[in-house]
Parts: sequence; structure tokens; C-alpha cells
Amino acid sequence: MTSASGQQGSFITFEGIDGSGKSTQVHRLADHLRARGHDVVITREPGGSPGAEEIRALVLQGDPDRWSAETEILLFTAARRDHMERLIGPALAAGKTVICDRFADSTRMYQGLSRGDLRAVVDQLHSLMIGREPDLTVLIDMDPATGLERALARQTADERFEAFGAGLQQAMRAGFLALAEEFRDRFRVVDGGRDIDTVAADIAAIADNALA
Amino acid sequence: MTSASGQQGSFITFEGIDGSGKSTQVHRLADHLRARGHDVVITREPGGSPGAEEIRALVLQGDPDRWSAETEILLFTAARRDHMERLIGPALAAGKTVICDRFADSTRMYQGLSRGDLRAVVDQLHSLMIGREPDLTVLIDMDPATGLERALARQTADERFEAFGAGLQQAMRAGFLALAEEFRDRFRVVDGGRDIDTVAADIAAIADNALA
Ligand SMILES: Nc1ncnc2c1ncn2[C@@H]1O[C@H](COP(=O)(O)OP(=O)(O)OP(=O)(O)O)[C@@H](O)[C@H]1O
Ligand SMILES: Nc1ncnc2c1ncn2[C@@H]1O[C@H](COP(=O)(O)OP(=O)(O)OP(=O)(O)O)[C@@H](O)[C@H]1O
Ligand SMILES: [Mg+2]
Ligand SMILES: [Mg+2]
Repeated sequence: MTSASGQQGSFITFEGIDGSGKSTQVHRLADHLRARGHDVVITREPGGSPGAEEIRALVLQGDPDRWSAETEILLFTAARRDHMERLIGPALAAGKTVICDRFADSTRMYQGLSRGDLRAVVDQLHSLMIGREPDLTVLIDMDPATGLERALARQTADERFEAFGAGLQQAMRAGFLALAEEFRDRFRVVDGGRDIDTVAADIAAIADNALA
Repeated sequence: MTSASGQQGSFITFEGIDGSGKSTQVHRLADHLRARGHDVVITREPGGSPGAEEIRALVLQGDPDRWSAETEILLFTAARRDHMERLIGPALAAGKTVICDRFADSTRMYQGLSRGDLRAVVDQLHSLMIGREPDLTVLIDMDPATGLERALARQTADERFEAFGAGLQQAMRAGFLALAEEFRDRFRVVDGGRDIDTVAADIAAIADNALA
């Protein structure tokens, strides 16, 4: 299915360490693009579609050790497949702009950090079952100390991936920057250590350029 | 981890259409092997470990169309990975004989029947995330009419894979026989249209031969 104009929409993802401002900037970019006439769909991972949310709940609830890293990757890939089929794919086919808060790069990063040997498995599963990469990925890069302060201030309980110390946050920052190098065609790195409006203006310019 | 003798145990699976007598014969073979001194573990798929059972419940509950075939394969592969890691693998490493009621061949068969183009995906996921094939697979082959009668008489509600007509049962019989040809090293085909004791005696002889 394609839009009336036959044009596929654009797929934009946001990545970055906890508290770097992804969710804030997803909404700011959506406002900007809507003002310019785009039909924008906002979504997030893990989750994003009803089936994927159920899988997300299964993974995140209960004893953190009850799934191995490999089983967890399979479950997240199943959730992402559902999310692509039910929400992202149809929206893009209808010509909409999809903005997704975290996507496959988060899986590459988090699994790669804890189990570097699993990066190849993550990539093989992605190419076999997901295929599509974003057209543009905005990496909000920032001093982990700033991000950790923001995240702790919010005190959300259910996301166990946030239960990391400062050293690991540093490693995650480096991991995301390495991914930005690896996939430099679609990644744009933004300095997230500035005020919200300044960051938003940078991202708006990047998106306008990428979608032109 | 291996047993005191350093010997890996044997992995035996049962396949066949609904009502062909798999569960009955799994227990008969376990009795036979225990009498011969084997330490036997009985398990089943989908499910078999606590995590896999949770995934099984997620797949089988609710609207049959809420998962695509691809998402379902990923979820079943996640369940199988958990089952292998937590139950089958450790038991084999401890030198036990594991008998499993349905395994990966059921996925190959059922997915292949509804979506032949997915067979390659099933196989790639298996080799990437599971790896291990059974040492012996007993296919209980039978006239589908007999099997369907037995299955309907039991009236179990939760297994929607059973909601098939006679034509599809015929196709499933042919599908399993084709798998037995494809993996002829480990498959043994048994005529399940005979009485329970006769079938059990055949399977006991096959297992004794395979484990010798
Ligand atoms: N540029 C900024 N300057 C100061 N505070 C900010 C900035 N951007 C976001 N914040 C605030 O920091 C907190 C975290 O922001 P946000 O939720 O957008 O981050 P996030 O990357 O989505 O975090 P998470 O990874 O935990 O979902 C929020 O309270 C938000 O209002
Ligand atoms: N050789 C046989 N002759 C007659 N009845 C049998 C025979 N084997 C099993 N049965 C009966 O047929 C029914 C189905 O058998 P069983 O549950 O072992 O099959 P199954 O292959 O495990 O079925 P399912 O695929 O639905 O799990 C049961 O009521 C069982 O007692
Ligand atoms: Mg967020
Ligand atoms: Mg049974």
C-alpha cells in the first residue's frame, strides 16, 4: 500500500543514553514537521503496537535473570516485527512520517555492551526478520552525568535498563557514537547538553535537510 | 557441564499429526527406558520450561490473527531457546535421556504448510538460535481420519492448531513424511494405526537400537 501520491513516508528514529532528551525532542520534532504539513506518527520501542507492548511487558516484568540475553533478543525482535507490520510499515506506506523513540540501534547498543559476541546475532536477526533501517537517526549525545541526573529525578520504576552506574553510562555514550560512525549515512549526532529549544532547532534543521 | 561419565545424554523427539498417539507413546517409551536404567526427562513443546510456557500462553491466547506467521515463529523460537537453555541442554549435559513431545519439526511443518515461503526463515532462525537437532525423531504416521476422531473426542479447547479439517490433516501427514525423508538420518517412521502396545514395542526397539 502506498499513499495517494505513491510516495513512501520517512522513518526517523531517536537514540541516546537515558535522560538525554529523546522523548522531549521526538515531540518537538513532531510539532515542527506537522507545522510544515507532514502527517506525523509518533511511536516508541520497546513496544509501540498492542502485540509488541504485550511482549515488552513479558520481558520487563519479573526476575531480571529469567530470560537469557539470546531469548531477550528474540523477544525484542518479535516485538519489533509486530511493530513494523502493524504500525510503522502501514504508516510509511500511507506516506506518513514516522518518528520512533529508540529502535534497532538501542538493541545493537545494549546487547552489544553486555555481550559483545551477540552483536552478529542481533544483526542477522534484524536483516532476516526486520530488514528496514531508518532513513534518519538522530543521536542525542551528552555527558552521561547530566543524563543520569535527569533520569534519576524522574524515578520511573519499570525500566530496568536504567539501573546502571556512571561508568556504564559512559560506555553507552561511546557505544552510540560508534554506531553513528558505523552507520554514518543515516546518523546525525546532536549535542544534547544545551537547552531544549536550541537542541530542537538543530534537529529541525537536520530533519528539514534530510527530508528535502 | 557434562555428566560424571562425561557422556552427553540422548535427545529423542516425537512428531505426528493431532491425535496420532505422541503423548501416549512418549510415556510408554519413558517407562521402557527407565526400566533399562536410563535417567529420563519428559518434556513438550510449545512450552516445556516456565519462560517458554509464558510465551506459549501469549501466542495461543486471544485472537488467532493477532500475530503474523513471522512474529509467531520468532515467539516460538524464543520459547524454544529458553526451553533448550533451561531444561533440555542441562539435562543432556548431565547425561539424561530427554524425550520431547513435538519439537522444531512441528514448527517446520505447521509454518511450512500455511506459508511455504517461511520454511527458509524457520531453518535460518533454528540454526542461528537453537542449533541442536534431536538424535532420534519418532514420526507416528497414521490415517488422518483416525487421528482426527481421537482428537475431537478429547475436545481440548486451547490448541487452535487443531482446528483443521480432514484435507489439511492429509496435508500435514504428507508434510511430516516429507520431513522424515529430508532428515532421514534421525527420523524413524512408525505406523500409529495399530494398538498402543504394538506401537510401543516398535518404538522401544527403535530407541534401543538408536541408543546402543
Ligand atoms: N535539553 C534539556 N535541558 C534540560 N532538561 C531537559 C532537556 N531535555 C530534556 N530535559 C528533561 O530531562 C528529563 C529527561 O528527558 P527525556 O524524558 O526527554 O529523556 P529521554 O532520553 O527520553 O529519557 P529515557 O531514555 O529515560 O526515556 C525530562 O525531565 C526532560 O524534561
Ligand atoms: N494406538 C492407539 N490406539 C487407539 N487409541 C490410541 C492409540 N494411541 C493413543 N490413543 C488415544 O488417542 C487419543 C490421542 O492420543 P494422544 O493424546 O497420545 O495423541 P497426541 O498425538 O499426543 O495428540 P495431540 O497432537 O492432540 O497432543 C488418546 O485418547 C489416546 O488414549
Ligand atoms: Mg524517553
Ligand atoms: Mg499430545
